[in-house]
Amino acid sequence: MAQQERARKTKDAILEAAGAVFAERGYDGATVSDVYSRAGLTKGAFYFHFSSKKDLAEEVLSIQVDRQGYPILPRQVKLQELVDAGFVFAHRLMRDSMLQGSVNLSLESGAHQLDRKRPFVAWIDHNQRALTEANDHGELYSHVDTAEVAELMVSSFSGAQILSHILTGRQDLTTRVAALLAHLLPTIAVPAVLARLDIAADRGERVLAEAGVGTTALRPAPPGLTDTL
Amino acid sequence: MAQQERARKTKDAILEAAGAVFAERGYDGATVSDVYSRAGLTKGAFYFHFSSKKDLAEEVLSIQVDRQGYPILPRQVKLQELVDAGFVFAHRLMRDSMLQGSVNLSLESGAHQLDRKRPFVAWIDHNQRALTEANDHGELYSHVDTAEVAELMVSSFSGAQILSHILTGRQDLTTRVAALLAHLLPTIAVPAVLARLDIAADRGERVLAEAGVGTTALRPAPPGLTDTL
Repeated sequence: MAQQERARKTKDAILEAAGAVFAERGYDGATVSDVYSRAGLTKGAFYFHFSSKKDLAEEVLSIQVDRQGYPILPRQVKLQELVDAGFVFAHRLMRDSMLQGSVNLSLESGAHQLDRKRPFVAWIDHNQRALTEANDHGELYSHVDTAEVAELMVSSFSGAQILSHILTGRQDLTTRVAALLAHLLPTIAVPAVLARLDIAADRGERVLAEAGVGTTALRPAPPGLTDTL
Repeated sequence: MAQQERARKTKDAILEAAGAVFAERGYDGATVSDVYSRAGLTKGAFYFHFSSKKDLAEEVLSIQVDRQGYPILPRQVKLQELVDAGFVFAHRLMRDSMLQGSVNLSLESGAHQLDRKRPFVAWIDHNQRALTEANDHGELYSHVDTAEVAELMVSSFSGAQILSHILTGRQDLTTRVAALLAHLLPTIAVPAVLARLDIAADRGERVLAEAGVGTTALRPAPPGLTDTL
């Protein structure tokens, strides 16, 4: 058990270092030795957990999917849960280097053969489910095309992330997400729902605090967090 | 003059090839010899026009800025001009490999030291001017923060471009731009203006046809087009 625990810590240290290295140098610019050196590990320790740079990158990419949903508490207004998922993701993205590396990989269109669709499709599916639930609760206008909006939210969030990254090093990401929602939601949500939504920029931080997950826990996200929440 | 003309053609052939190579391999994955080989030129011809890969990439990046605005005809509803600029850019981006390479470079966050801010800032400035003019004509709600919307339009367009690229190889880009505008404009434009806007997905194609610029002229954009329009 102690050995399992140690192995998991080693693997997580590699993923953490990989996130930072991919974020800084991109997939093509990163080397396996960059990663294990930064993690303070040996080549042998690296290849015990990962077979190649591509294998490592696939796992870094999957972090966006596996850890995306936590910890969204149920709300009376279903659309608030969708808003919360976006703000929590934005809040984490401003702080978690592993997640930053993961997002960078999915945006990078170099020579690599990574499956970049997966994190986007996972988020589209997530939004589609949340919008359908909101629709079932009568929260959306009847003309809303939930599939279209699910994709529009993913694309617009991705764009906010990129512009925030390029212009301010992600410092204003949650402010951009708030502006996006303020312009997008009025064409989707009926007024009675709109008036009850909390779309302030610090929403993600408050949601995490309410769930008992502090910001410090996000540098980096602790191993197995998705299992325990 | 014939010599100048030939030099311009050579330079344009290099930029065209560079766009395609950067689009396929990213900045780090591309080499100078990839570029001049694809253009069917010699190393010497390349270095007559560009001092380095970075120099070349800077010029490819600047294509987004230098050629962005054409050919937007004046409209009675000023907001339509902003819409048209977006649709024309989207339409070109689906076809022009030089522009695709340029956009890829600005989205890629590898090890390179390129100035990725410039094309985004240029578009933000462009939108800000267009929104200010629309506002002066009474087309916008009084609560609209034009600076915020100018950036939101750039970020959301960028996101639409990325998702379209990843999911469909950019085949549905103009459809995504239409969906974005259908959800964004109702919170910005007063109803009388909104009702008169043309935001159909084929708007860019029609604007270009009206200006006498065919689609064939965009593979690649002919040299000096910005000067003559």
